[in-house]
Amino acid sequence: MASPQPHIKLYTDSTPNGIKITTALEELGLKYEVEHVDISTLRQKEPWYLEINPNGRIPAIVDTFDDGEPIRVFEGGSILQYLTERYDPEHKLSFPKGSREYYECNNWLFFQHGGIGPMQGQASHFLKYAPVKIEYGVKRYVTETRRLYSVLDTQLSKSKSGYLVGDHLSIADIANLSWVIFGEYTDVDMNAFPHLKEWEARLSARPGIAKGFHIPKVLGIKSDDPEGAKKYQSHHADWVIRSQQLEQEAFSRK
Amino acid sequence: MASPQPHIKLYTDSTPNGIKITTALEELGLKYEVEHVDISTLRQKEPWYLEINPNGRIPAIVDTFDDGEPIRVFEGGSILQYLTERYDPEHKLSFPKGSREYYECNNWLFFQHGGIGPMQGQASHFLKYAPVKIEYGVKRYVTETRRLYSVLDTQLSKSKSGYLVGDHLSIADIANLSWVIFGEYTDVDMNAFPHLKEWEARLSARPGIAKGFHIPKVLGIKSDDPEGAKKYQSHHADWVIRSQQLEQEAFSRK
Repeated sequence: MASPQPHIKLYTDSTPNGIKITTALEELGLKYEVEHVDISTLRQKEPWYLEINPNGRIPAIVDTFDDGEPIRVFEGGSILQYLTERYDPEHKLSFPKGSREYYECNNWLFFQHGGIGPMQGQASHFLKYAPVKIEYGVKRYVTETRRLYSVLDTQLSKSKSGYLVGDHLSIADIANLSWVIFGEYTDVDMNAFPHLKEWEARLSARPGIAKGFHIPKVLGIKSDDPEGAKKYQSHHADWVIRSQQLEQEAFSRK
Repeated sequence: MASPQPHIKLYTDSTPNGIKITTALEELGLKYEVEHVDISTLRQKEPWYLEINPNGRIPAIVDTFDDGEPIRVFEGGSILQYLTERYDPEHKLSFPKGSREYYECNNWLFFQHGGIGPMQGQASHFLKYAPVKIEYGVKRYVTETRRLYSVLDTQLSKSKSGYLVGDHLSIADIANLSWVIFGEYTDVDMNAFPHLKEWEARLSARPGIAKGFHIPKVLGIKSDDPEGAKKYQSHHADWVIRSQQLEQEAFSRK
């Protein structure tokens, strides 16, 4: 059976969770339209967008489903599964459904979604965005980020192929990479994780991934671009704290 | 084709992430063996267990795969997908692969895995386990937990069936319920979320779910059992802080 034809509109911004999807789409070679949801304006909380992602976060996609009607997909891991299940019959970024590698790929996809993503996100918050310096929070989340990186490093040290799962690149690599490239930004010394550092450099040099990093905007957060990292920090600190304030007013503790 | 026969060994403890799997297994009516990994002894960090889950967390399962050899599955969301893909041909807790409901179910499964789980976990940490009172952390994570509950409440307010997705109970409900029953424990006033409160009570009364809550141990964390909740708190505070200390020594910031 021929694969269905995608008609994807991607709602995204230049963040770790955003580039997870652009790098995957580029590696899959799929056509897609980008709608830049500038999260610094809190556009992701507007009613029209909550119809697409009720959680008010980027990324999300709308595609045309088999029945000709739109379908929404939100949460990074859910989008990556959707894209590969529907549009990756050659298994460029996936493994045959029901195979051992398929399930192991899911293990590492959820590992990123529930571990590195949220925990490194908290490290960023306490290191870069919180208006007060809280050493307890910094230490807690930077430690957890480093521990999670060590889990990936160990997995790669055992890998013959140089990928997290099986013999080729997959959405497990893509999902984790999108956060690992922010390692230095969250005070992780990548030299402590040599396998992960080599994997990061090798994957980042792939044309599809390299292109995806900079959609919808150029992403300057590496140590060779300190000005870019500073701009990224101040851009995000502003809206993160504004949004936190609004939410604390809306959902104050009783 | 007949479904494969499970030969599941579940490594778990009585926590939100643990009961996510026991409730699903009970609702599916599957046979399984329970290995109680008492996380308070840090058994989940022992080398034999890291072969099963390299992240050193519960839950995980080992099953016999189609080739007759063992397969490991870790991370709650990955386990729930594995169980339903392999052992739920009647779609008791799932939807036909590739259907609209199938993808919407994944959206809410990942919503729990990346949102409610880690964020409510941080709320518990700052409210119940941290050795120092850090109001910034308490407020940040209790607010985020309440916001995430409001997203579920809104979704349920629009649901004709009374479930998060489609016309029946699914792993999307199961995954989120495992954390929502801890709502009061993390200072959430459930009266603010009437649809969620009704859903919680209705689902919790199902025999399979009610049984799964108390495997491997009786779980006493509701407001009608203040002594149980106090015991749960002191039991977990002890190992959480011990483990955090050990990890901060192992992964100290450079």
